[in-house]
This record gives sequence, C-alpha cells and structure tokens, in this order.
Amino acid sequence: MDLARIGATPKGGNCRLALTEEDRQGRDLVSGWLRDAGLEIRVDQLGNIFARRPGRNNTLPPVVTGSHIDTQPTGGRFDGNYGVLAGLEVMRVLDEQNITTDAPLEVVIWTNEEGSRFVPVMMGSGAFAGMFSTESALAARDHDGISVADSLARIGYDGDMPVGGRQLGAYFEAHIEQGPVLEQEGLPVGVVTGSLGLSWFDVVVTGQEAHAGPTPMEYRRDALQTACALVGDILTLARPHAPHGRVTCGEFRVFPNSRNVIPGRVNFSVDLRHLEPAVLTQMEQRLQELCEKHGGQTGIEVQLIEVQRIPPTPFAQELVERVRTCTQALGIPHRDMVTGAGHDAVYISRIAPTAMIFVPCVDGISHNECEDAKPEDLEAGANVLLHAMLHTAGI
Amino acid sequence: MDLARIGATPKGGNCRLALTEEDRQGRDLVSGWLRDAGLEIRVDQLGNIFARRPGRNNTLPPVVTGSHIDTQPTGGRFDGNYGVLAGLEVMRVLDEQNITTDAPLEVVIWTNEEGSRFVPVMMGSGAFAGMFSTESALAARDHDGISVADSLARIGYDGDMPVGGRQLGAYFEAHIEQGPVLEQEGLPVGVVTGSLGLSWFDVVVTGQEAHAGPTPMEYRRDALQTACALVGDILTLARPHAPHGRVTCGEFRVFPNSRNVIPGRVNFSVDLRHLEPAVLTQMEQRLQELCEKHGGQTGIEVQLIEVQRIPPTPFAQELVERVRTCTQALGIPHRDMVTGAGHDAVYISRIAPTAMIFVPCVDGISHNECEDAKPEDLEAGANVLLHAMLHTAGI
Ligand SMILES: NC(=O)NCCC(=O)O
Ligand SMILES: NC(=O)NCCC(=O)O
Repeated sequence: MDLARIGATPKGGNCRLALTEEDRQGRDLVSGWLRDAGLEIRVDQLGNIFARRPGRNNTLPPVVTGSHIDTQPTGGRFDGNYGVLAGLEVMRVLDEQNITTDAPLEVVIWTNEEGSRFVPVMMGSGAFAGMFSTESALAARDHDGISVADSLARIGYDGDMPVGGRQLGAYFEAHIEQGPVLEQEGLPVGVVTGSLGLSWFDVVVTGQEAHAGPTPMEYRRDALQTACALVGDILTLARPHAPHGRVTCGEFRVFPNSRNVIPGRVNFSVDLRHLEPAVLTQMEQRLQELCEKHGGQTGIEVQLIEVQRIPPTPFAQELVERVRTCTQALGIPHRDMVTGAGHDAVYISRIAPTAMIFVPCVDGISHNECEDAKPEDLEAGANVLLHAMLHTAGI
Repeated sequence: MDLARIGATPKGGNCRLALTEEDRQGRDLVSGWLRDAGLEIRVDQLGNIFARRPGRNNTLPPVVTGSHIDTQPTGGRFDGNYGVLAGLEVMRVLDEQNITTDAPLEVVIWTNEEGSRFVPVMMGSGAFAGMFSTESALAARDHDGISVADSLARIGYDGDMPVGGRQLGAYFEAHIEQGPVLEQEGLPVGVVTGSLGLSWFDVVVTGQEAHAGPTPMEYRRDALQTACALVGDILTLARPHAPHGRVTCGEFRVFPNSRNVIPGRVNFSVDLRHLEPAVLTQMEQRLQELCEKHGGQTGIEVQLIEVQRIPPTPFAQELVERVRTCTQALGIPHRDMVTGAGHDAVYISRIAPTAMIFVPCVDGISHNECEDAKPEDLEAGANVLLHAMLHTAGI
C-alpha cells in the first residue's frame, strides 16, 4: 500500500492529520490513481475531492461512494482509506468489464473526517450536507491557531466548486468496523443499519497555579486534582447504559504543565455516544451534574462547553436492504449492526439515501497504529459495494 | 524593569525558559549591566555566568551572590531575577561608596534553575557543585529532543571555562519567599536556615489506544482512567505529614491526545518534599505502593521512574547567623524559616558555606504570571545582602 507510506509511523500505522503536508501527498497520490482510472476530478471549497465516471444518463444524480484519507495522530492504514480505495477498485473493475451504468458514479474523498486536528469532525461531509456552514468550517483552527482555510490554501486543495447544494442519487461507504463484533462472530461483512448518536464537549477546569515547593497543601487550588476526580466520575456515566453507552475523555491538557508548578488549568474533552436519543440526553445531563458537583469546591471553576452533537442516525431502509441482499446473493456470511463510530455516511444520510458496509478489523482495534484487516474480508466488502452500486445506478 | 520585558506574558509575567532566544536576550541584557558596573564576565561550559569584582587580596576565594534569570512557562518577574539584580545593586553601591573588599566578590547567573525545560533542575549550580557531571547536564534534552549542549551553542553561551572545581569563600542568595509566611506575618525579611528535601519522579501509565465510538466500555484499557485515579491517591499522600509535606503532579501528558481515541498512554510527574529525610523516604515508599496498587489492574502497566533527589539541606550555621545579625542591626523585622523551593543555594551549600535571604511576595504566589513583591521589601533584602557580603569578604 503506497498510501500507507505517507505519514507512516514506526509501529506500522499512519499519522496523516487533515490538511497537513502528509495529507497533501496522500491526496495527490490517490487523485492520480483516480485520474489514471479515467475519472474526472473536481475539488470543492472545503477540499472534498470528487472523481466522476459518466453514466448513460448524466442528468441522473450520481451514485456515490467514498470515505476519507486523513488519519488520527496514531492512526491505522485502513480507517477511511479502505472506503476510498474500495471505490477506486469498483471503478477499475467496471472498466475491465466494460460496464457503463445508467446513472453516473462518483468516488469522493471527504476532508477532515477524523476531527483530530480540527473540529467539527466529519467536516467535509457535514458542510456538504448543510449541517453547518462552509464559512464556519473554513474558520476552524487547530491547537496552533492555524485555520482550515489557510491549511487548504497551503496544500493547494482550496477548490472552487461550491460545497454541497447538489443531489446525490445514493451514497455507500465501505469501512472497517473499528470494533470487535464481526471478528468475534467470524463474519466477513456487517450490514450497517445506522449509527450511535455522538455528543462532544470540552471541559475547562480553572484553579490557580503556584509553586510546588513552598505552597502548603491547604492553600492550593489545584486544577489537576479536580480534573482527575471529575474524569474519574465521568468515565463511569455510561455504566447504566450498556451495551450502547460510551464515554471517553480523549484529550487532556494541563497548564502550564511544568513539574514544579501546581496546575492552574486543565482542558479536557468528553465524547458521549448512545443509540437512543433519550439516553444520550440523560448522559449529557449527568455530565452537567458532575461538572457542577466538582466545580462547587472552593476556588475551582468548572466550565462545560458544547462542541458538536450528532443525533443517533438510522440509514435508508431501502439501501440497507440492498446491501443485505447483495451480500446474501454473494454467499457472504453477515449480520446487521450499528456503527459506534461517526462516518461521513452519517451526515450524508441527511440529504441522500445512504448505507454502509463493514468489514472486520483485527482484534477490533482502530485509531491505533496496529490497526489491521484481512485481504479476503476487504475483498468481500468491495465486492458487496460493487454490486450494491450497480443495482442502484442501473446497468 | 527592562529584564521583565523579555519574554513578557500578557498577564504581566514572564516566559523565559532556559536557553531559549528569550533567555539569550535576558543574559545579554544583564551581562551588559554587570559589565557596565566594571565587572569582568566569564562563562563556563554550562553557560553559568560569573561577574567578578576584584578585592584587595585576589588569592582569597570569592564571596559570591546570585541566582537565575530563567523562568517557568508562566513565571513571574521576581523568581531568580531578584537575586541576580540584588547582586548587581550591591556592586553598584560599593562603587558609589568607593569600597574595596578584602576578598574578591562575584555575581553569578546560574543556568536552568527552574528545571521546566530541562531536568535536572538547578542544573548550573548542581554541576558546579559536582552533584552530577557536566556531560550528563549537556546531554539533557527538552520535550522536543533538543539538548542543552545544542541550545547553549545556539544562543552563544557555550563558554570555555570548566564547570566548578574552584573554591568559593561563601555564597549568599536573595530570593522571594514564593510562599505565604512572611507576608502573613508582616515581616520584610526571612532568614533561611535550610531547605526541604525534594524527590522527583516520572510515572508512565500504559494501556491501549482504541476508538472512542465502537469500543465497548468493558474492552477498554484506558490509560487516562488509571492515571486519574492514581493522581487522585498520590495527591493525598502528604496529608499525614503536614505542615512540611508537599506533593504535586505538575506535568501530565496524554497520548495520542485525540478527542475520539481512548488514551493509550499517560506520562505524569510527581514532586515530593519534606524537611525530614525519614519522612521523605516514607512518602517515596507510599508513592511506590500506590503505583503498584493501580498498576495491578488488567492490561494497565504503571512504571515509576526516579528523576532527581535532593535531600533536606541545612545551611551553614555561621552564615545564617551572620544574615540574622545583619538584619537585626539594620532594624528589619524578620524570622527564621525553611525554603520549600529548591534554589541554587541548596546545591552550592554542598561545597561552600551558604545562606539565603527571603523577602515576601504578594499573596505568597510564585510560578505564576501575577507574581509580585513590594519595592521596600526588595530593598530591605538587598540591604541585608550588602552587609552580609561585606562582613564576610572583609573591608
Ligand atoms: N470512523 C471514524 O473514525 N470516525 C471518526 C469520528 C468518530 O469519532 O466517530
Ligand atoms: N525557586 C525555584 O523556583 N526553584 C525551582 C526548583 C523547585 O522546584 O523548587
């Protein structure tokens, strides 16, 4: 995999954060492959890349597939990349077999799906679906204060096509499961019926920095002490809501972060997920209560900031059914499942009929450099994608 | 204060981390002032700066004063800087008054006292006192992997004088208290009899990173969850050892530190202090026990690494007595006290008779941008320093 060489990490993973120089190299490489497959490339103002294969009737809305090629800081080779390369593979097979579809086909690479460098997460697809404005996305900044707009210009992916505003006939996305279910049950394909809702927050804990040596214990307003107790409580709040409840504190930054200074401030993130809208709301309320409880102590302030919210999302019944039928027809063992991860498909399902195809990943591990998947499973998923797209576009 | 303009922070403090460009500018400025006061400047291989005022008998070992001008990331204008500038002021007064001492006098600026960018802390004075080798200090690296040796060369303070190996007649250091005692008791001067011992550790908590969405709670090996519980316990371990027991976790870093990734690793620091060697050892043992307890859980590894240890250090009785007598003679209200902060004086006391003079700082706050001190207290401290040096050097 040449793509996996760009931003390769020592442990066999990838660090190709959105809109970095590594992302540019990845985009150039994959766009080249798409162009070599005879597709016409267009880039929108958020850097989303669309590669089009004309159909017999080009007034029909396109049947689209794709995913993303940005990664986590210690990400893997499959998350996102698989969906884009499966789309490329479908196009190559159609060329080999000399197949023309009724509707045109497109392969898309969405910008900043991971949300690791910039929020909102799933930025390109979210703006395309009108979930937030292109302007707000362009204005988002990373921890060094660099904006999306500047980063796009720097890597030369500030296209001129407007973001969204056009109809898609259907959207399919193939992806690794990023969880343990398919592998444990020995199934090569998961038919994804919808996704958990996701609710993201930032928490800011403010105390007062002071010298670690001469400051008596009882004088301290230690932001880290409060933050640790609060995180300890927050991480238990999904317990009553198994199996679909999830809570994670993934980012955690201490200021000034010096060995002999009592921390004056801690910023951390909270990621809540659940399948039921009502339970997700309950979890959000519990988070709020915990912040109030821990902030009530003398001299420590706890601030809770909403960052992003994506409600639980069911996919289009008709398309889910089509994925199921194609998988069955190919004789591939499968099951229905929901995705715990957000995907570009989740946003696109707001404006177009959408479905997803999952394949297992080794040990259910993702967002980790040792992410891995079996070639035969990847092939099975791409095969289902091919058939589902052909059925939808018409031949 | 022109010095406080270099690395000035928005809240009125200073960020002049050791051996940065800001440190270079600070060194150039203060060296210029020392040169203007007629002193001869020499720089050793660790960048320690010595400014010498000859005495009548230059075979006598010098009577030295000084401190440091590096700061914490969100440091103040007085910590360290006061001791250096008080030394400069003493030299200017002697010139004005046309006083020549028997022994030569020196003002020293020690390299990297703060230990914020590089460990060991109190690096320049520690190597001078032979507490560790100059080579090991030069090889120390910051979080970006840049070494002390390279940083010294970059800012042009890689002198050629060997580090240490010469006799000092006495060492005095004036410093802000960095704690609340003098201010609360309304005393302009503290006579410092010695320092708390300090024991520094790094803790590494290793779990496994995985995706925040699809990974069920019971599959997780969340390094942050364990680290937070462990820090919560560690921060209580000084409780039985009041008033001199101190414990601080100042640095805390999470990897990969991404919103939708379960943390795979956390590194944090522990700073323990106490006046009694036996109690400091007890605290260290308790830390070890806590790490073992929390590391015993499935799939989480806790590693405890010793970083630096400075035993509780009493200063030279004769010099402490001299500071007390001079303060009394000047009619300045004072008290005896120990320092909770480490100081260059603590290391130098291993090779030369040493004493310190404290002045109050506003609200007892230090290692904070809002660090402040009253001009009249700073003057009182400098006056005591002048008299103690004159008595020691002989006139
Ligand atoms: N698939 C994936 O890794 N998406 C990132 C968004 C999320 O955190 O779920
Ligand atoms: N005085 C001072 O801030 N020293 C730094 C070393 C310590 O942490 O005590």
